[in-house]
Amino acid sequence: MSLASELPVAAEKFDYSSTIDVLQEQFGDRVLTSSAVCSQFGKDESFHPSMPPHAVIKAHNREEVQQIVAICAEHKTPVVPHGAGTSLEGNIAALKGGISIDTSEMNKVLAVHTEDFDVVVQPGVTRRQLNDYLHDTGLFFPIDPGADASIGGMAATRASGTNAVRYGTMRENVISVEAVLADGSIIRTGKRARKSAAGYDLTRLLVGSEGTLGMFTEITLKVYPIPEAISSAVCTFEELEGAVDSVIQIIQYGIPIARVELLDDLTMKSINMYSHTDFSETPTLFLEFHGSESSVKEQAELSQEIVQENSGSNFKWTSNTEERNKLWRARHDVAYAGKLLHPKGQIWSTDVCVPISRLADCINQTRADIDQTGLLAPIVGHVGDGNFHLLLLVDHDDPDEVAKAEALHHRMVMRALEMDGTCTGEHGIGYGKIEFLKQEHGNAVDSMKMIKQALDPHNLFNPGKIFG
Amino acid sequence: MSLASELPVAAEKFDYSSTIDVLQEQFGDRVLTSSAVCSQFGKDESFHPSMPPHAVIKAHNREEVQQIVAICAEHKTPVVPHGAGTSLEGNIAALKGGISIDTSEMNKVLAVHTEDFDVVVQPGVTRRQLNDYLHDTGLFFPIDPGADASIGGMAATRASGTNAVRYGTMRENVISVEAVLADGSIIRTGKRARKSAAGYDLTRLLVGSEGTLGMFTEITLKVYPIPEAISSAVCTFEELEGAVDSVIQIIQYGIPIARVELLDDLTMKSINMYSHTDFSETPTLFLEFHGSESSVKEQAELSQEIVQENSGSNFKWTSNTEERNKLWRARHDVAYAGKLLHPKGQIWSTDVCVPISRLADCINQTRADIDQTGLLAPIVGHVGDGNFHLLLLVDHDDPDEVAKAEALHHRMVMRALEMDGTCTGEHGIGYGKIEFLKQEHGNAVDSMKMIKQALDPHNLFNPGKIFG
Repeated sequence: MSLASELPVAAEKFDYSSTIDVLQEQFGDRVLTSSAVCSQFGKDESFHPSMPPHAVIKAHNREEVQQIVAICAEHKTPVVPHGAGTSLEGNIAALKGGISIDTSEMNKVLAVHTEDFDVVVQPGVTRRQLNDYLHDTGLFFPIDPGADASIGGMAATRASGTNAVRYGTMRENVISVEAVLADGSIIRTGKRARKSAAGYDLTRLLVGSEGTLGMFTEITLKVYPIPEAISSAVCTFEELEGAVDSVIQIIQYGIPIARVELLDDLTMKSINMYSHTDFSETPTLFLEFHGSESSVKEQAELSQEIVQENSGSNFKWTSNTEERNKLWRARHDVAYAGKLLHPKGQIWSTDVCVPISRLADCINQTRADIDQTGLLAPIVGHVGDGNFHLLLLVDHDDPDEVAKAEALHHRMVMRALEMDGTCTGEHGIGYGKIEFLKQEHGNAVDSMKMIKQALDPHNLFNPGKIFG
Repeated sequence: MSLASELPVAAEKFDYSSTIDVLQEQFGDRVLTSSAVCSQFGKDESFHPSMPPHAVIKAHNREEVQQIVAICAEHKTPVVPHGAGTSLEGNIAALKGGISIDTSEMNKVLAVHTEDFDVVVQPGVTRRQLNDYLHDTGLFFPIDPGADASIGGMAATRASGTNAVRYGTMRENVISVEAVLADGSIIRTGKRARKSAAGYDLTRLLVGSEGTLGMFTEITLKVYPIPEAISSAVCTFEELEGAVDSVIQIIQYGIPIARVELLDDLTMKSINMYSHTDFSETPTLFLEFHGSESSVKEQAELSQEIVQENSGSNFKWTSNTEERNKLWRARHDVAYAGKLLHPKGQIWSTDVCVPISRLADCINQTRADIDQTGLLAPIVGHVGDGNFHLLLLVDHDDPDEVAKAEALHHRMVMRALEMDGTCTGEHGIGYGKIEFLKQEHGNAVDSMKMIKQALDPHNLFNPGKIFG
């Protein structure tokens, strides 16, 4: 916030007109330079202000990405890989201007290997597009950040979502990538075998590197058979504690739950406003169970017992697909719904994640802290992973509110780090959490910088991110 | 083989006496230089000849590792981290001599977080020691290479074993590490949160780096609740095809099988000789199911149906712990058992892994290829992952047998790569598979080398491995 407002808009500071000339020779009117387009490409879904690139170009294939990167490398012009623009820490902001490479037309599903449970996609394919494509195969891709993010962006951010407690994050679900590096070479980081001990794990190095080490041109992903049975449940609690304790006990009991989401009273209120639903406006869990008919029944019954022991009630479950979809759509829309609670507020989504044994402490202390500030901050989270978000509602024209929010956020991250947790479970560092990365990783950040320096010595890719 | 025999023994070529003098000043008679000790530390469990270090020193804690690394860095003396010495590609051989740091006395379990399902261990803790330690907690650590390897060695090699099909490999089960780097600094790669999007994934970079980037001083691992019910099964087949097809169908059906191991007729014969068992000496599957009572029953019944459809018979299952342990001990001992088939033979364990859809082709073609060579080569494997081994039995004093084995191995790896597989599912590159790494990863190996150069510019750690 304060960081962002101090940053100059790079377009005014750097001159990349010769780069743009060369790109235009090669790509004609596919090189877009209008301020409307550039401004849009410099802005993600967070409160961070737009930091527009000097130009945007839609790449169609790996060869074009390679050409664009080569031209930018020759002219020392920053390259910012751009997916669906749904990041939350300014990850796609062009802090030093340059060229945003738009992957929205690199959106083909290249192969579906149904027998191996994997797919090969271009980076611009979105998660919903992929699942629509897979519809008739009996397979699905589980990673689901709230927004309809691109697979490239999700891999770059090491994203997760509601299914991570069962299926893992992008870290576990990217099998390999093809990427263009700063020296213009294209590498493929692995074959399709499910495991390999062959050399350094470049796949995992690139996943989560936020476009600072290279640009994805193909991604091979794990997919899963749609379970024989799926059942979703909703239950409500008088107090937050009961909901959190239920989740901890479900995890510790070893129930292979597929989804378990916490939504506090404020979140439920906003959902009812946005989605025209009539949920009880008290702390709530959304749960989902995957497996065989008998396994799902067993999981749901055990979970219901645990919920009841923690004073939960109104445990309703459904296997009806339409009802389930409505439930999860409401969950995914909470970031949009939250805005209705504060007409002038923008959402600032925090993202700590702690070991499950510390989750109740972390949420309770944070809840008390929010109450003391008087800020509006619905709590929602993938609590089975120990990950939760405040949807801090802040009027950015009110310096007092901004200062309170910054201080609250700082205390919250420090609390999570003290509990052996992380400053970001799934949103990444972008340029919003650079200081927290140092707090969390100490001198390991130096090792990260050495790797960046080795693979991208001229700081071509997404400069200013992760390290500042 | 030919590679190894051409290598000079480094101790004769380099003089590190001044390094050893300084180490002796600091550590006294804990610095061992006898040829018997050094020779033992230069040899793993493979056919690769001993490449002894100049000295061996048992480190007791992170501070001592840091001191030893600092002394070696100052004197440009290679450092070879050493676990239990059970590697299979010469991974711990001191190709350029130097100092082997023995972790066998860094063998403390430092913390067990039962509520978070994680443990913190020193690198010298072995997998059996860890499971003995966990015995009364209701938790277990699933990764089980055949040998009683150290956790440090397993992390360095990105090891797996029979449980990987359900629980993943070291890649998925190391939460974070603490490591001493070449510049003498100590880094910790992460907190205990189950997921994080904070910066580059240094954990996964160090896991599988085979001691070439640093030396582990602490490792945080996932552990799992011992399932409510466990059931193991054995079934036999007239032909290999039926066994392989059963596995493929069990995986593709989505049965969450915990272990599924293929053992061919020769392997079964050797097991009977070694373990004094009376298994049928035909292609056999060992299976294991984990879950609730009802889930295990359901999984076993479905698997039995699949096995029968593929002409499998004698499907026997047991929940008796003693019988189960006997079964899996026999499985883990196959590398030792195989030696009985060929009195002069040494075991050369191959390690390809392919997508499951190609597994039947890969095994069938390999079986036909073995038959043409006349070599003895039992087949055994973690087939649920697409990973299998030949236990090639080779008399290393017979150049003709060696040449045939090398050619067979080469064809086998090329076949796996053509099928989008890997040259090593779990043994690593060491110095035995350097050429295959290049075949598999192409110019991505250059990126690996750049990272090595950035983090270890003087090639201090385990020189000659992975890249040569």
